[in-house]
Amino acid sequence: MRLRKVKGAEEIVQNSDYVIKEPIMNKGRYKELFGNNNPIHLEIGVGKGKFIVEKALNCPDINFVGIEKYDSVLIRALEKVKDVKIPNLLFINDDASNVDAFFDREIDTLYLNFSDPWPKNRHEKRRLTSEKFLNKYELIFKKKPHIIMKTDNRKFFEYSLKSLVDKEYKIEKISLDLHEDNYPDNIMTEYEEKFGSKGSVIYMVEVIKE
Amino acid sequence: MRLRKVKGAEEIVQNSDYVIKEPIMNKGRYKELFGNNNPIHLEIGVGKGKFIVEKALNCPDINFVGIEKYDSVLIRALEKVKDVKIPNLLFINDDASNVDAFFDREIDTLYLNFSDPWPKNRHEKRRLTSEKFLNKYELIFKKKPHIIMKTDNRKFFEYSLKSLVDKEYKIEKISLDLHEDNYPDNIMTEYEEKFGSKGSVIYMVEVIKE
Repeated sequence: MRLRKVKGAEEIVQNSDYVIKEPIMNKGRYKELFGNNNPIHLEIGVGKGKFIVEKALNCPDINFVGIEKYDSVLIRALEKVKDVKIPNLLFINDDASNVDAFFDREIDTLYLNFSDPWPKNRHEKRRLTSEKFLNKYELIFKKKPHIIMKTDNRKFFEYSLKSLVDKEYKIEKISLDLHEDNYPDNIMTEYEEKFGSKGSVIYMVEVIKE
Repeated sequence: MRLRKVKGAEEIVQNSDYVIKEPIMNKGRYKELFGNNNPIHLEIGVGKGKFIVEKALNCPDINFVGIEKYDSVLIRALEKVKDVKIPNLLFINDDASNVDAFFDREIDTLYLNFSDPWPKNRHEKRRLTSEKFLNKYELIFKKKPHIIMKTDNRKFFEYSLKSLVDKEYKIEKISLDLHEDNYPDNIMTEYEEKFGSKGSVIYMVEVIKE
């Protein structure tokens, strides 16, 4: 997402109880941070936060961590939760390329929603489903790696399928037109509501590695 | 494909030099039948034959075998070649479920073009990408199993991807909108010309098993 810098965003993020201030220092400590032993689901690139906030509210027995690089975007997610206390939700304001420095085999499920497709070949390594990132993810999963991704970018989805299968992931569920399939438990991101309603096809795949 | 019975079709098929009369008796004999050691590509379900006839004409150094169950359909393919001699093309008028009785590790590439999707769960085993068929195919490939499939049926494509990946196939190429991608060497089937031109999305995947 390309975006304007919002004045004061950094301060809002620094002062929020929802934001983990030193994620590297908290590697391996999520059981303590959440105060329980529940599964932990991670979203990389939470954007304005609609998906992860709704997920956290709907699934109180799962802990959610959302990573968002841009503080000017993360404040939109923090606005959504500022007047409520959601004990199973935390955010990290940092770059996803450090994800393996933030978690030590603590994650059960990873969500990649409408990630930047980085269409140019020379930017391949920045794609969140590149081999480079898939290798990092292997270090954060508690047991079987389990990824659920959605995108409206066809080329990025084709690339991701190939990349995941190359890494020995198997397909649990796949939809090449998610909204047509009308999954009752699909929580839409802001982006998905905007573009899905304009008739763009939304692709989804859920993969697992034994 | 649902179809009318054509009177005299059986006789036309029996009398054609392009048709292998006793496919089971010719298992392991394709080198002799073609008179050379060229790679052999198989299409299951040739329909009216446009794809395989054009392929055979375009690629004289590859031998092509086409299986078609219905003689009333196969005669449409035979009509296309009745006034020419294409030495690298043969047909089998039989059921695909016998494919492992027809070939003994002789096939290099298998094409599945717009196969019947058999959408009902109870017909799953009839789908040409079901585990049952994939097991049969393993007995016909000379070296690495190599399958190229096209379909306009989304659910069948989703099913096929999952099924192929479950069987350890890796993705070589994938397109979730083949005509948009404008592959210069895509040879369209009759079905594809008719439905692709109406704006249906055509899905394609090429998979290989190491």
